[in-house]
Amino acid sequence: MANCIVAQSGGPTAVINSSVVGLLKANNEIKAFDKVYAGLNGIEGILNGNIIDLSSFSEDEINEFRYTPSSGLGSCRYKMKHLEESTEEYDKLLDILKCNDIKAFFYVGGNDSMDTIAKLGNYAKKTGLDIKFIGIPKTIDNDLMFTDHTPGFGSAAKFIATTALETYLDSSVYINNGIFILETMGRDTGWLAASACMARINGEPVADFIYLPEVAFDIEKFLTDVRQRFKEKNKVFIVVSEGLRNSEGKFITEVESQSHDKFGHAQLGGVGSYLKNLIINSSITTRVKSLELGVLQRCAMHCASNIDLEEALEVGSSALKFALEGNSGYMVAIKRESSSPYKTSHILVEADKIANNVKYFPTKLINEEGNNIKEEALDYFLPLISGAPSLIIDNHLPKFKTISK
Amino acid sequence: MANCIVAQSGGPTAVINSSVVGLLKANNEIKAFDKVYAGLNGIEGILNGNIIDLSSFSEDEINEFRYTPSSGLGSCRYKMKHLEESTEEYDKLLDILKCNDIKAFFYVGGNDSMDTIAKLGNYAKKTGLDIKFIGIPKTIDNDLMFTDHTPGFGSAAKFIATTALETYLDSSVYINNGIFILETMGRDTGWLAASACMARINGEPVADFIYLPEVAFDIEKFLTDVRQRFKEKNKVFIVVSEGLRNSEGKFITEVESQSHDKFGHAQLGGVGSYLKNLIINSSITTRVKSLELGVLQRCAMHCASNIDLEEALEVGSSALKFALEGNSGYMVAIKRESSSPYKTSHILVEADKIANNVKYFPTKLINEEGNNIKEEALDYFLPLISGAPSLIIDNHLPKFKTISK
Repeated sequence: MANCIVAQSGGPTAVINSSVVGLLKANNEIKAFDKVYAGLNGIEGILNGNIIDLSSFSEDEINEFRYTPSSGLGSCRYKMKHLEESTEEYDKLLDILKCNDIKAFFYVGGNDSMDTIAKLGNYAKKTGLDIKFIGIPKTIDNDLMFTDHTPGFGSAAKFIATTALETYLDSSVYINNGIFILETMGRDTGWLAASACMARINGEPVADFIYLPEVAFDIEKFLTDVRQRFKEKNKVFIVVSEGLRNSEGKFITEVESQSHDKFGHAQLGGVGSYLKNLIINSSITTRVKSLELGVLQRCAMHCASNIDLEEALEVGSSALKFALEGNSGYMVAIKRESSSPYKTSHILVEADKIANNVKYFPTKLINEEGNNIKEEALDYFLPLISGAPSLIIDNHLPKFKTISK
Repeated sequence: MANCIVAQSGGPTAVINSSVVGLLKANNEIKAFDKVYAGLNGIEGILNGNIIDLSSFSEDEINEFRYTPSSGLGSCRYKMKHLEESTEEYDKLLDILKCNDIKAFFYVGGNDSMDTIAKLGNYAKKTGLDIKFIGIPKTIDNDLMFTDHTPGFGSAAKFIATTALETYLDSSVYINNGIFILETMGRDTGWLAASACMARINGEPVADFIYLPEVAFDIEKFLTDVRQRFKEKNKVFIVVSEGLRNSEGKFITEVESQSHDKFGHAQLGGVGSYLKNLIINSSITTRVKSLELGVLQRCAMHCASNIDLEEALEVGSSALKFALEGNSGYMVAIKRESSSPYKTSHILVEADKIANNVKYFPTKLINEEGNNIKEEALDYFLPLISGAPSLIIDNHLPKFKTISK
């Protein structure tokens, strides 16, 4: 027998640990590998030899870990060099895997992690090494192609829709109300902001306007819309994605913040404040509040979607089975068989296809004015947020399991 | 028989509607009043004749309203003139009550609302009118004197402690972590920020530092503490109250924002960003994130404390009974009989005493360095956050009941 290893990468989600637990449980059941190792802090940690044995986890520990948000194995945003540039890191990594008798490598992540899976899979094949590389999807952004959705998205969407309802009520209590702006994450795509369309009271959406990166932002149209709606209703509730862009494709806040992360992505945030200032400077009203949900939307286990947790578990379990069937260089993707009743299956997609594509929010689900989401979108969104998990409670608060790194 | 009226005032909480439901249920049971009216948008709405009959609510509607956050009857921040200045508003209000055959007036609110209760109670007595005025406590700030705590606080504290746990995990995933700052509300007192001391993993508090308005903020000491801790642990988790003040009692962010609300209170917010900039400018690290919980902490029904919801209901029910016993000009206060087992009773406190006092977080529960909370505080906090309510769910999201105003 031999061993396998799992690691996490990129930004955390509420359910990313569930995928590790799914893999662990599947292996406990079919006993395919002697040991399930975890690489701490992704590729970066593995290259530093930072590896632990998850097989020794007790049932209780596994269960606590399952309901613990954020990347429990640690994460990284480490980008491997192009193979043509240098094979040094690749050789080092494969050496470490060989030394630990590892026959399968699982990476839970988004586009960048699938890039790593593709490169490692190729290089292993080229060097004749029998190690399988399988990607497990994870991102709250829901922007991976060839999968109906990504684990992590459902819980983020549920948190966004729930807090949209609550902040809408909070911003509607006075005779003279103001304008409330809820800012979600979503650098390139509008899935997260769009999910606020589920927030409805008496069947009516609470969001007057939802702005996505997929629609070029027009300041004049925005101010006309908001002014008009404020006149009619004496309050306006706006949901906006951090990644709003102008007609030239530039982030509307880019001028104000020039910092970039390691992958060259612009560090965003602050769109809510930007819109708030636009409104105030246009003398529509001075009563404008803006709230950035920030990292809460990706770690709010207390508001997680149970189906999302289940699905995260299942892709982890499928990853193990797909590796055992001899597949390598693929990501496990979710195929929606039907929305009602909600039914899915798992398929494999080449990891490099995932790495080099972005799934945008479909134009056909955006209204004609480009400032809200059509009701049809509910069929897509609603099944992804169903059910609430029974968290383990200790001293009236969720009990979370940490692994020292 | 005759009628009574209830209204809400000040900032919303997650459980403020429960107090209205408590009163309604108590009246349905003992049938003391023909009708329970609601004044919409507090005193301001009543003065405009904006009154509805709650007695016609169905059981289902009452139950939905109970689990709806934010001031469902609408709110106001209307301050009545001093009696010596003019009796016009008082006469108008009492006239409206008389016209509707109202014998008891209930006001759910904080200090300012109790000021209104005291003034109206006095004026009614002086003019020989037999209308009882009773205050029902409500504020997430927990800063009312002579009551062990205020309904609304427990749910806010639970949300803060829960999100402290979650954001702590989110900010601990990389090899090179940074500094995370969680900003809570709390203009004058540190109860909300202090409640983050409940956030513990393996018995250890997640917050390295908790800063309250009760301790004069010393920039040099802050930077020394943070620099030292960051050196030791490679990450620092900080909780801070929006109302931080310097040794002269001035809000440390006051220089940057000069806007004030109707009561002359400085409009705060932005302490997190302020500290973030301090840290970055001191070259401790550039990896600093700051998150303002904002209005979420006062409306997050999805993370409410069940005991808080129950207690909000009970103070509403007690208010009705105290009025029937002939009391007027008082607020219902909660007396803690014991922490373990948790047991409370209700007493009456003169409303003007509440109006003119502020309950600060006790110095004896703050550590010697003034930068964290002692473990003893758990005995006070923990009973207030116990249990989770069974919310009514519709399309996988909480179902909330609104009243058109």
